[in-house]
Amino acid sequence: MRGKFITFEGPEGGGKSTHVRELADALRAEGHKVLVTREPGGTRLAEKIRGLVREEIEDPPVTRSEVLLFLASRAQVVANVIKPALARGEWVICDRFADSTFAYQGYGRGIDVQLLKNFNDFATEGLVPDLTILLDVPPEVSRARLAARQAATATQADRIEQAGEEFHRRLRDGFLELARAEPNRFAVIDSSGEREAVSAAVLAAVQRL
Amino acid sequence: MRGKFITFEGPEGGGKSTHVRELADALRAEGHKVLVTREPGGTRLAEKIRGLVREEIEDPPVTRSEVLLFLASRAQVVANVIKPALARGEWVICDRFADSTFAYQGYGRGIDVQLLKNFNDFATEGLVPDLTILLDVPPEVSRARLAARQAATATQADRIEQAGEEFHRRLRDGFLELARAEPNRFAVIDSSGEREAVSAAVLAAVQRL
Repeated sequence: MRGKFITFEGPEGGGKSTHVRELADALRAEGHKVLVTREPGGTRLAEKIRGLVREEIEDPPVTRSEVLLFLASRAQVVANVIKPALARGEWVICDRFADSTFAYQGYGRGIDVQLLKNFNDFATEGLVPDLTILLDVPPEVSRARLAARQAATATQADRIEQAGEEFHRRLRDGFLELARAEPNRFAVIDSSGEREAVSAAVLAAVQRL
Repeated sequence: MRGKFITFEGPEGGGKSTHVRELADALRAEGHKVLVTREPGGTRLAEKIRGLVREEIEDPPVTRSEVLLFLASRAQVVANVIKPALARGEWVICDRFADSTFAYQGYGRGIDVQLLKNFNDFATEGLVPDLTILLDVPPEVSRARLAARQAATATQADRIEQAGEEFHRRLRDGFLELARAEPNRFAVIDSSGEREAVSAAVLAAVQRL
């Protein structure tokens, strides 16, 4: 039996990596084989593409190049990692996927969302998640958590994280609009509260699968 | 006045880099400012993308990822190099451009050519060459010249050069079909003969611009 494909989406600071890990642990405890991956990244080539997008300071990608690099990374991880795992019957959990492209480059940067959907269909060969968990946080919470993380780890905001307040508002609204358009695929979870409550809501959404 | 944009296309071994250089010299001798670039490549980011496509052996790009990487490289060089130079009134000569995508990934690897054209329009923001010089050589000549170059420089065929005979035949036929569809943009030059004769034919095509 084909496995299930679950993606986590939402603004920075919504706790995606924490909840990806907790869900993977919970599913493994139930006896499922679980593969966890992330975007951009997830294969050797895709991680190199991630590096280009995030760290190229001297010649940072223009918006159109950025979109195409994300899609190139996605095509690789879908073909070489996600589809084979699903075919083996594993559950796959991915930290960001297509909806991040629609939210960041579409709603955030103003590229036509339908065009991005066509390009994404090409990159993924039409693969759509069985469930997308949108960890929603207001921009203030997102920014405060990001600042705390950077202080704790002594890292700098990267090129995308540095984008302004207005961008982050469009981004969040974009995610919510994507979720409204596909209520059967999305579970929208308020991630500004306690972690335990969020974990419980994630598990409840997955039980409904 | 906006400058002119000239691209060189064709199979490997057709002498593109030689004739790009010679044409640039000839135009400079006439007093034009000329910018020479190449694809994939032409900016710091784009050259890194070129490296990923050509040299990643452990996790080579799947066809869809390869297409998207080429387009990402193109979006960057168009936005940051080619369009600004044309706007400054310079002539731009590019060693490979969109037609290589249509020929290699479309006719060569079987991706729908119209789909590739749509993607390419996005990457280039609709930029089309004023003149495309197709240096045409039969597959036998292409392969013989490539082998001679590799022997002379002690290099190995890269991933794309290693593709089989049938692929190279589809590639060449693809280039010729693209040229037939847009006779006003293309100049098809038989590049299997003497270099001087080819140079003269290139110059004659450019004079007609």
